[in-house]
Amino acid sequence: MKLVKTIQEVREEVKKARGSGKVVGFVPTMGALHQGHLSLVKRARNECSFVVVSIFVNPTQFGPGEDFARYPRQLSADLTLLEKERVEIVFAPSTEEMYPADSSTVVEVPKLSKVLEGKFRPGHFRGVCTVVVKLFNIVQPDFAYFGWKDAQQLIIIKQMVRDLNFPLTVVGCPTVREADGLAASSRNVYLSERQRALAPVLYQTLKLMEAMVKAKKITETRKLVRAGRQFLMRHSGLQLQYLKAVDSRTLQPVPRVKPGVLVAAAVKVGRVRLIDNILF
Amino acid sequence: MKLVKTIQEVREEVKKARGSGKVVGFVPTMGALHQGHLSLVKRARNECSFVVVSIFVNPTQFGPGEDFARYPRQLSADLTLLEKERVEIVFAPSTEEMYPADSSTVVEVPKLSKVLEGKFRPGHFRGVCTVVVKLFNIVQPDFAYFGWKDAQQLIIIKQMVRDLNFPLTVVGCPTVREADGLAASSRNVYLSERQRALAPVLYQTLKLMEAMVKAKKITETRKLVRAGRQFLMRHSGLQLQYLKAVDSRTLQPVPRVKPGVLVAAAVKVGRVRLIDNILF
Repeated sequence: MKLVKTIQEVREEVKKARGSGKVVGFVPTMGALHQGHLSLVKRARNECSFVVVSIFVNPTQFGPGEDFARYPRQLSADLTLLEKERVEIVFAPSTEEMYPADSSTVVEVPKLSKVLEGKFRPGHFRGVCTVVVKLFNIVQPDFAYFGWKDAQQLIIIKQMVRDLNFPLTVVGCPTVREADGLAASSRNVYLSERQRALAPVLYQTLKLMEAMVKAKKITETRKLVRAGRQFLMRHSGLQLQYLKAVDSRTLQPVPRVKPGVLVAAAVKVGRVRLIDNILF
Repeated sequence: MKLVKTIQEVREEVKKARGSGKVVGFVPTMGALHQGHLSLVKRARNECSFVVVSIFVNPTQFGPGEDFARYPRQLSADLTLLEKERVEIVFAPSTEEMYPADSSTVVEVPKLSKVLEGKFRPGHFRGVCTVVVKLFNIVQPDFAYFGWKDAQQLIIIKQMVRDLNFPLTVVGCPTVREADGLAASSRNVYLSERQRALAPVLYQTLKLMEAMVKAKKITETRKLVRAGRQFLMRHSGLQLQYLKAVDSRTLQPVPRVKPGVLVAAAVKVGRVRLIDNILF
């Protein structure tokens, strides 16, 4: 495994690999790696002969007042984990390497970026799209791996890759969960013991909604969301930001549950923001 | 020379060329080819072993009320010209091929896109950047050729390529002019005989300004622009939209003329809009 810090070095490494006929898999991360990230890396390792993982806490996807400064950074622990997964290249650039002083180009999927997370984190997906385009152009992978945990991010990136004709395939991978159902997230380390005990209610809410649909008790999304909201509200200490049932392509509300409907939610537990979703 | 209409076909052709070690040069155009375009093609032909020219009148870079519908289209004449230049591939996609119904991703360089042309054509450079990113991802050239005639476009695309880390080199080529100095443009065919006679005044103005600087008569841009404006105003029938001296990297006004200063102007002759510029 090779740790590289500059764009030029990654390009050279990938070029060499391509030259010898390798298929390049890419897993972009912000580090603070957990089982969710590692599942993406394992998938890339299975499907590709050359695996690049980037570790870059991207400032442009954090809003003012968000957790950019305190976002967990633990490069050496991350490298140990990636070494075990037999990754070829870890790309860990500095902020200056990625964003020279005069950079100003932005990439956006406006239609998909103003709802759900986008409503609570204006500019977030512009930052995500921009850095992902940069990373795609730097690494030029054949396959890029993203988790369903960040469903809206995955959907936006798929749309962006289609719209901008990137010559690569985006692979969405299932959410990895703790034993009690909480979705693996780098932000889970922010949770106090009490908050951590409360956090699984988010996924329990989604599972309850799923069960109601499977039992054919509810098909109208309006009623389904109301039931979910009522369940969630019973647990004090969780503050609901949104709970919506949307079309997983357009992210627009749909009247009835059917295959392709995404139920996505965000809650705050104290200052910690958690998101989760299920796809029908 | 091969005419291809689908993205998949271009990709296959370029892949084959790459496989046999070719260097790919790309000239994006909107067709209605003139000597300006052909100078870009010749340059690409000189520097690259595989030349792709695209012909696509990009709807997203035209504003409402602009000339998208009447923009000159003459594919078979264009093909004859390109055949003579020994181009390998002409990519002439339909609008549907380039913009499927649900496309919505946009690419922008906001800081550079609101001044000069951008002020008079809101959204224009967003359309340009978006289609150029698409074309870059489709063709994946090593070199892409643009004319200095559209100086702001060239400057924006250079910035975009830097910012988004596209693995290619943008080559800016000198403006090609008619014998009387009028910059070659597909829109020149709109000019009536009287308008055509008047049109060279735009370049004469720029040359006069250049001469004043060379004679060290003027170094302050404020005075230089005033002198240019006065000269231009003497010719009735030309309506000045802007005449500015800016830094050619930031497109921001500069107090004094020095190397790297761009003097850019737009005029209307009747309904026809003409642009031109000189770079110190």
